[in-house]
Order: sequence, then structure tokens, then C-alpha cells
Amino acid sequence: MNEQTPCDTDGFHQHLHEIQDLLTRHRVVESLEHRQNMPRQALVESITHKQNLARLSRKLDRLHPADIARILESLPLEDRWLVWDLVRADKDGDILLEVSDAVRASLLRTMDADELKAVAESLDADELADLVPDLPPEIIEDVFESLDQKEREQVRAAMSYPEGTVGALMDFDMVRVREDVTLEVVLRYLRRFEALPDHTDKLFVVDREERLRGILTLESLLVNDPERQVAEVMKSRSLVTLGPDDDATGAAQAFERYDLVSVPVIDAERRVIGRVTVADMVDRIIEESEAEILGHAGLREEEDIFASVVQSVKNRWAWLAINLVTAFVASRVIDLFQGSIEKLVALAALMPIVAGIGGNAGNQTITMIVRAIAMGQVEPSGMWRLLRKEAGVALINGVVWGGVVGLLAWWLYRSPYLGLVMTGAMTLNLLLAATAGVLIPLIRQRLGRDPALGSSVLITALTDSGGFFIFLGLATLFLLS
Amino acid sequence: MNEQTPCDTDGFHQHLHEIQDLLTRHRVVESLEHRQNMPRQALVESITHKQNLARLSRKLDRLHPADIARILESLPLEDRWLVWDLVRADKDGDILLEVSDAVRASLLRTMDADELKAVAESLDADELADLVPDLPPEIIEDVFESLDQKEREQVRAAMSYPEGTVGALMDFDMVRVREDVTLEVVLRYLRRFEALPDHTDKLFVVDREERLRGILTLESLLVNDPERQVAEVMKSRSLVTLGPDDDATGAAQAFERYDLVSVPVIDAERRVIGRVTVADMVDRIIEESEAEILGHAGLREEEDIFASVVQSVKNRWAWLAINLVTAFVASRVIDLFQGSIEKLVALAALMPIVAGIGGNAGNQTITMIVRAIAMGQVEPSGMWRLLRKEAGVALINGVVWGGVVGLLAWWLYRSPYLGLVMTGAMTLNLLLAATAGVLIPLIRQRLGRDPALGSSVLITALTDSGGFFIFLGLATLFLLS
Repeated sequence: MNEQTPCDTDGFHQHLHEIQDLLTRHRVVESLEHRQNMPRQALVESITHKQNLARLSRKLDRLHPADIARILESLPLEDRWLVWDLVRADKDGDILLEVSDAVRASLLRTMDADELKAVAESLDADELADLVPDLPPEIIEDVFESLDQKEREQVRAAMSYPEGTVGALMDFDMVRVREDVTLEVVLRYLRRFEALPDHTDKLFVVDREERLRGILTLESLLVNDPERQVAEVMKSRSLVTLGPDDDATGAAQAFERYDLVSVPVIDAERRVIGRVTVADMVDRIIEESEAEILGHAGLREEEDIFASVVQSVKNRWAWLAINLVTAFVASRVIDLFQGSIEKLVALAALMPIVAGIGGNAGNQTITMIVRAIAMGQVEPSGMWRLLRKEAGVALINGVVWGGVVGLLAWWLYRSPYLGLVMTGAMTLNLLLAATAGVLIPLIRQRLGRDPALGSSVLITALTDSGGFFIFLGLATLFLLS
Repeated sequence: MNEQTPCDTDGFHQHLHEIQDLLTRHRVVESLEHRQNMPRQALVESITHKQNLARLSRKLDRLHPADIARILESLPLEDRWLVWDLVRADKDGDILLEVSDAVRASLLRTMDADELKAVAESLDADELADLVPDLPPEIIEDVFESLDQKEREQVRAAMSYPEGTVGALMDFDMVRVREDVTLEVVLRYLRRFEALPDHTDKLFVVDREERLRGILTLESLLVNDPERQVAEVMKSRSLVTLGPDDDATGAAQAFERYDLVSVPVIDAERRVIGRVTVADMVDRIIEESEAEILGHAGLREEEDIFASVVQSVKNRWAWLAINLVTAFVASRVIDLFQGSIEKLVALAALMPIVAGIGGNAGNQTITMIVRAIAMGQVEPSGMWRLLRKEAGVALINGVVWGGVVGLLAWWLYRSPYLGLVMTGAMTLNLLLAATAGVLIPLIRQRLGRDPALGSSVLITALTDSGGFFIFLGLATLFLLS
């Protein structure tokens, strides 16, 4: 009964395993057919062959497009293409919208012009606008010609807003009503629909110029006396609306704060031009948090885990190159102190501790500050307060952990002075990490940059080179001169 | 007009600045009153004083509880408490549910028993269950006594499910109807409500034993002929339902995949016991992604940026301690090769490069694999394929970047053999990073652990110690013996 919609990972894995099973059987049959070239045998195998594919195809028909999308993402390329061929064409569009960009590219590559056109024609204007940038240019022409005037304008409108704006996320499915009618009229009007647009929780009340006058929630439509006028019942103050140029992240935060399901998008003249729903916002929130998590490891984009080695290398090389540069700088700092290390080789063993702990503490500070900036909790004016606090934390950690490490160094190398230098260097590097952890994101914010981008690389570079310099410098001054 | 609900960060900052302005004025007046002890003066100031607070209070009255929550999070403790005192009591409950755990604790500390009881009584059962763990025990008793039998059972039910389950997130606000009535009857029934529960997009069709028979969307209620029976119109196949013990993360993924607004929670006998809405799920998704981002930096929980130094130290110390241990192990590995470093001090300068790049590449691999596991795309059976691919990526990176670094080392230290050792060590450490990056999360998954937890620490520890060992070991073998 629940076949179409598994709610948990186990349910999904059952479907995936069944499909993998069928695929394996199919491959076995294929290789048998290939080896045994006897005509009779070929015939028998061929029937099994067809049976397998038919079973696979029936299985896929019963699954929700979002689940097929996940299954495609979980299959290696050759299996993925086989399954993709078997999916009923009317689901193609929905599936392409659900899969990750990398997997979408791998699927589009296998489709010919007619298939692509069929998919494009099955989509709404806003969905089509999402897909267009991935289509071959010659197809786009044809697709545009197949649309009617209004749809074409909608697709162009949706495409005209840059990624990351509300305009790029809005759809054009909405129900509009006038304020001078009774709820009964609205109820009768709705009965003429076959279905309402997804996520319709409110109707937009507009005047003759399509300007937003208020919103009529389905709730107020249902709980109020049908004899009442829309104007009496609608909400017309403190409306949450969005503009097409508004930032999508801010919009997503608004959906979260005010528990919204759909919001009208209005232009400068308050004309309703579209609608954003919580489904778009959930996708947006998930995409953003994934981008942030991937960004921490320097992965530029969501990677198809079945992508080729070459594609993976491309996705990852930039980060490694940047880190190579910063590691090289740190290496040059160490090189400055060759003489000291030669005299006291224990320095070489101890120096990564100072650098490493500084990097960890710095990343803690910077992660917290970046988040607070993103939540709007921190402004440049609060800098001093934050600096004082983080310096306090660094000082405590420096004395405590630096002290522990200092004692260990004393015990290991029988030198109390080496221990003291270690404690001092750790405290100073933690203070450096705290200061940079506060200043780097705040300065980037003031310069109008994204405070998160590359903050972690910067602070690690600083605490590595700085840690080596402070530790080896202190050792040279106090132990070796 | 839009005063109550600013949709963007700028709008929020305007409110925040106005409030900060009023607070500053209030503080100035306070310090003036304190200094100038003249009676007439005191009187004048006192009026200004009251005016300021009244203005502040009016301002707060017009704001949405979610925005007041953000403003409280953005204010230092003394200002936060002042504003909290001025907030209208009927908003207290909603605000407490919106603020972060750390800020909630700071607010609850200032409230006396009567205030806490008033708040508790203003909340729904499921909301109260969220708040109870933070309340002082003596208050909880009183609160429970003030509830009626049904509410008390609901609070206990909600509290009986562990965090991270659907049961802990569900609410008890739902509209149930019978299948043997016409839509007209349902419409008349709904008109008896003052309001529907938030996020009602469907009614639950139940039998006499409260068992779920189907769902009736508001959409189908509105577009169908009112003479039709609920049973004809309701959806009764492929229903998405959740169990109270289901994992909340899986449920959130289902909301995202199937674009849901509300889902019934049913027990083993299919009795409807509650409901989960997209608003809960959005909060859950955001909390999870924040926990993951904070976890990467070893921050155990969301930190109140205005928390005391001591509280911050507590939140961060465990991570630093763990990293200290791993750094110490790496330091011991270096110590093994004291003799080699004494003979060739360039080794000390080059070794952090090998360790660092290995750590970066390993974190890239592990981030990707952990994400793929979370999405259900990877299973232990796919291990070999992933290992082969990651080893391929590591080999290319090792030859390319290791080659670059090898050439640099050759040029800097005039030793082609040192360059070769560098290239070899980097390639081997990248292979180690790739292998561990695939195996660590897969093994943790097979052991039933969270594949994400601490993966980054483990791989960095391995690539640090491993990198030092491989590089210094190769150098000792090929350059110094």
C-alpha cells in the first residue's frame, strides 16, 4: 500500500536492492547471451531478458519521481542509463528536476532532441526555466517555439532573474480572486478547478490592475460564513510579501521564522507576478547547507559519486592547490629557523602541536562568528566585545592546554625552559587565532564579501605559519641565544 | 504596513538598530539619574526614562515573536534581560520556543515561578513538552497540576519519545472526519471552528476506533461537488504516514522529497495519534545542518555569542583536548626520526606539506562519502568501486602536486633525491588519505555508528602521523642510509 512513498531510509534501500537485483540478473543474462551464440539458447535467454526488463520497468512505474531520482543517483553510470531508459517518459521531467546537477548532466547526455523536447513540453514555465541552462542550444530554440506566448514570457521572466533571487525560484501557479465578492462565489469558482496549484494555502486578492489587496487563506474561506465578503475576511495588513529581486536566502529565513507555506511575489507596483512555496524554500535551505558543508572541505560542487576520476580531480584540485601554497609558506617559515632546529631537534617534533591547536581554536572562533553574522547577530560595532571575549577564551585555553603541553615537553625533554617556551608559544598562537577568527569574517563582511568563503583556509594558513614562527622564534630567543 | 514581518536581513537590522538606539538612550538617562541627585532633575529624567521604555515596549509589541527572538539573540546579556522584561507576557511562550537553547537558558534564569507557570499554561501540549526539560523541577509539578487530564497525557506522551524521533516533534492539533458523510457536512463542520490548526492542508479520515482510513485534502474538499461522499473523494492508497518512533531526519527527507505540508502520525494499530508539519521539519533541517557545520569545528552546541568566557571554554574544550592528543601522537612520530632531522634539517621544513595536503585530500574524500551515505547512495557493497575511484584521484593528485612540490624541493635544496622522496611521500600519503577516507565512514556505518561523527578528526590524525612517518621514513631509507 505504501509502495509509492517510502518514508525512511530502510524503505528506500529495499527498493534500491530490488532494482539492483534485477539489474544484476539482467547483466548475467546479457553476458550469457553474449557467450553462448547458439540460436535456441539465445531465444530462451532473450525471453528472460525481456522479462527482467519488464519487471524492472513495472517496479519503476510504481515509484515516486523523487525516489527514482535518488535511485538514479545511487547507481553507477551504466546501470543508471539502463534504468533511465526504462522510466516512463511522463516522469522524465520531474526526475530531471529532482536529481543533483552532476547526475542531471549525466542523464541529459543520453537523450536525443525529440526526448528533450517532450520533457521540456511537460514542464511548467518555472521548472522549464531551471532546466533550460542545461539543454543544448539548438533544442532551446525548438522548445521556445513550441510554447504559447504567455508561457514563453513566463520562462523568459523566470530566466531573467539571477540565481539566488526570489525571481529565479518563483512559480506562476496561483489563484487570484476579487475582494467584492462573497466567499460563496469564491467557493463556486474553486469548484471549477480540476486541481489547485501545489501548496495552495491562500488565495491572492487582487484589484483590476492585478495589484495585491490582501490574502484569503483557505482556512478563513472554510471557517467563515459563505455569505461574507472577501474584503471582510481577507488579511490586508502585515502581509508577508517578497520582491523578485529579494535574496532567496533571506526569503528562506522568513519562511522558517514565520512558518509560511506560500508567499506572493509582487513587483514595485504591488502587482502579483508569482508565488514562492515552502517546497522551493526547503530545497533552497538544503542546497545551501550542503554547499556550506562541501565548501568546508573545498569541494566546489555536489559530486556525483559515480563520476569519473577526471571529473573528481577537477572538482577538487583548486582547494589542494591553495592549500599547497599556504603549506609552502609555512614550510618557508620553518626554513628560516634551520639553525635553531639543528641545535635543538626537539623543536621539530613539538612545532606541529603549536600550529595544530591554533588552527583548531581559530576554526572554532571563525565558525561561530560566521554563523552569528549570517543570523544577523553580529555587526562591526560589536567587534570589541567579541574580541575581548575570544581573547579571554584563548588565554584560558593557552594557560590550561599550553600548561599541559609545557609540562609534557619538560618531562620528555628534561628541559623546564623548553616547557615554558611551549606554553608561551601556544598561548600566543591561540591569541592570534582568536583575533584573526573575529577580524577575518568581520572585515570581509565590511568589504561586502561573503564572510564564510575561504575563512577556514585563511585562518589555518595564519595559525600554521604564525604558530611555527612564534614557537621557533621564542625558542631561538630564549633557549639558543 | 509590513512592520510586523520584515522579510530580509536589512528589515531586521532596521528594527534591531531602532531597539539598540532606544536602549542606548535608556542607559544614558539611567547614568544621568544616577549622577545628578537633584530632585527636580531626577523627576525630569524619570519622565524621559519612562518615555524611552514605553517607546521600546510599543516597538516590541508590533514585532513577530520570531523577530523578537532574533533580537534577543543579538543583544548582550544586560540589554537582553531589559528587553525581555518589556515583552508582553502573552508572547513569552512563543519567543522561548524560537530562541536557541543557550539563549533560552539565559532568559529562563530571570523568570520567577509565577511567570514560568503563566508561560507554560499559554502553550500547546507539544510545545510545553519541548520546554519542560529546561524548567526548574518544582515548577514542573505545578504546571502539570494546572493541566487537564487530556493535556497532561499529551505532554507525557510527547516527552516519552526520545529526541530525534517523530514522536518528539509531533503536535496534537488535527481535524478528523468520518468517511460516510458528504463534503457539505464537512464544510459545515469546519465552519464551527474559530480557526484551523496551523498548516492544515488535509483532514484525517478515521473510523470509530480512530484508525486512519484516508486523507481528505482541503484542495479536494474545495474543488469537488459538496454532494459527494468523503469516501469517494479521499485518498486512501499510497498514503504517506509516519510512526512515532521513526527517525526525524528520515521524516524530514520525506517532507523534502514529496513536498509535504502535514503528515499524520499513526501507531501500530493505524490509530492517528498526532501530526507533523513542514514547519517542524524546516526547523529540524536547519538545526541538523547547523549541528553538522558546528560539529566540523568541534563546537558541541550552538553558542550564545554573548555567553560568558567560562561557558564558551566549556563548549570548546573537548575538541581541543582530542586534537591535543592526536597532535601529540604526531609529535612522537617525528621524535622517532630525530637522528634523520639532525642530519638533514630540510626534512623539518618539508614535512608539514606532506601531512597538510594529505589531511585536505582526506577530508574531501570523507566529506563526500559521508554525504553519500546520508543520502543512502552508498552501501558497503559499493566499497571496492569507491576505493578504486578515490585511489585513482589520489594517484593523479600525488603525481601532479607531488611532482610540483618535488621540483620545488629539488630547486630549493639542490637535491633531486630529496625531490623524489617528497613526490613519493605525497603520493603515498594521498593514497592513505583516500583509503581511510572511504573506509572510516563505511566501517563506522557497518558498526551502526554515525559515519559523520569525528570522521574529520580521525582522518586528520591519520594523515598527520602517517604523513610524517612516510616522509621521514622514506627520507631515512633513501637519503640517509
